[in-house]
Amino acid sequence: MHNTKPRAVVLLSGGIDSTTTLALAQRDGFAVYALTFRYGQRHEQEIEAARRIARAFQVAGHEIVEFDLRRFGGSALTADIAVPKDRTPSEMGADIPVTYVPARNTIFLSFALAWAETLGAYDIFIGVNALDYSGYPDCRPEYIAAFQQLADLATRAGVEGRGRRRLQIHTPLIQFSKKDIIATGLSLGVNYGLTVSCYDPAPDGAACGRCDACLLRLKGFAEAGSEDPIRYQRIEKAAR
Amino acid sequence: MHNTKPRAVVLLSGGIDSTTTLALAQRDGFAVYALTFRYGQRHEQEIEAARRIARAFQVAGHEIVEFDLRRFGGSALTADIAVPKDRTPSEMGADIPVTYVPARNTIFLSFALAWAETLGAYDIFIGVNALDYSGYPDCRPEYIAAFQQLADLATRAGVEGRGRRRLQIHTPLIQFSKKDIIATGLSLGVNYGLTVSCYDPAPDGAACGRCDACLLRLKGFAEAGSEDPIRYQRIEKAAR
Repeated sequence: MHNTKPRAVVLLSGGIDSTTTLALAQRDGFAVYALTFRYGQRHEQEIEAARRIARAFQVAGHEIVEFDLRRFGGSALTADIAVPKDRTPSEMGADIPVTYVPARNTIFLSFALAWAETLGAYDIFIGVNALDYSGYPDCRPEYIAAFQQLADLATRAGVEGRGRRRLQIHTPLIQFSKKDIIATGLSLGVNYGLTVSCYDPAPDGAACGRCDACLLRLKGFAEAGSEDPIRYQRIEKAAR
Repeated sequence: MHNTKPRAVVLLSGGIDSTTTLALAQRDGFAVYALTFRYGQRHEQEIEAARRIARAFQVAGHEIVEFDLRRFGGSALTADIAVPKDRTPSEMGADIPVTYVPARNTIFLSFALAWAETLGAYDIFIGVNALDYSGYPDCRPEYIAAFQQLADLATRAGVEGRGRRRLQIHTPLIQFSKKDIIATGLSLGVNYGLTVSCYDPAPDGAACGRCDACLLRLKGFAEAGSEDPIRYQRIEKAAR
């Protein structure tokens, strides 16, 4: 069966959005080649999550590409900058957060493009969404459109492409709220207990419950009327 | 002095084109931050060349980013495919050669974008040229224009950019022949003895003299009326 399906490269970080995107790509009939990056994140837990998820979905292939964005610094996710906690939605939306990693999605999509070209895949899925992403520039629809245009020119297919399929960047979640994403995933049977979202988890894997990613996740589950299956640290309210 | 100059990220592979580009960026008054990649090339000699060149030009910074494109395969430069030899110019121009590395310049420019953003640099230099590059899709002017558009949207500057400078991708060699490039570099005092072009050098560093890169280089020096200062293997003509 697998070899008759069209191939798609799916960026898989191990979080809710990329896992839901993977489920949607499979539902749409693609043989999924999941692509994960170890880029100098503070913790390995999201890479472990990506491995678990790739196994659970029995993907056709899974690659983990390593490079070190800490050399460049500039982000709370890769440098020694504190992860902000307990921010309100309006604080999150006010500016580009320190957890923004410069040019990260551009780097990720570039590697996806390279792998798609060698796989003979014409479809790349990325789980960006413009609504809940608290202002990351490289999650906006106009950014994705610009990358699509680049992809048309960057590859062998872009030169020899007469009569061949055009490479397509799929962003099925781009207009989804976290609530919509979670509701969609649950309807497809996604086990969100496999996923990791927290920017600053405890060594035992428990999520902090207070960073932007945790707060958006918890709000999404609450609005979807479902309980988040992952573990959270017990926060002493008095200490905050 | 250095801290008053604007900063530029210059992609430095260790070959003639990127070295000439670096010389032009310095001439234009930029503090150069050279960026080199160890991506699974067959040989380390171009990385050693990049180190020598960065030292010779006393650049403000030099980073070597590592990742492994061999995972994806698909190129004679990173997989176990023979490097073509002794091709005529018309054979080289006929199609995209097997030495093409899928999406390589897109990946390189993405990292340059990340570093530029953390350095506060608004200028990226890449030594692509559309004439002598034997059909690589990601060396064409329309490709560079598409990346320029992406850069405007991908970064913090692209969101907060009101009143700030626009990020600029510089391709000073784009319409240069190899002869023009070499003549320009020689006029700026570039020592091309530091550079490496060969796709398939001997273990002692001698260039093969027969791959596309060697043939274009030798032709360029001949047309510029200068002698190539690097060492070549003695080819037994009878054995070919």
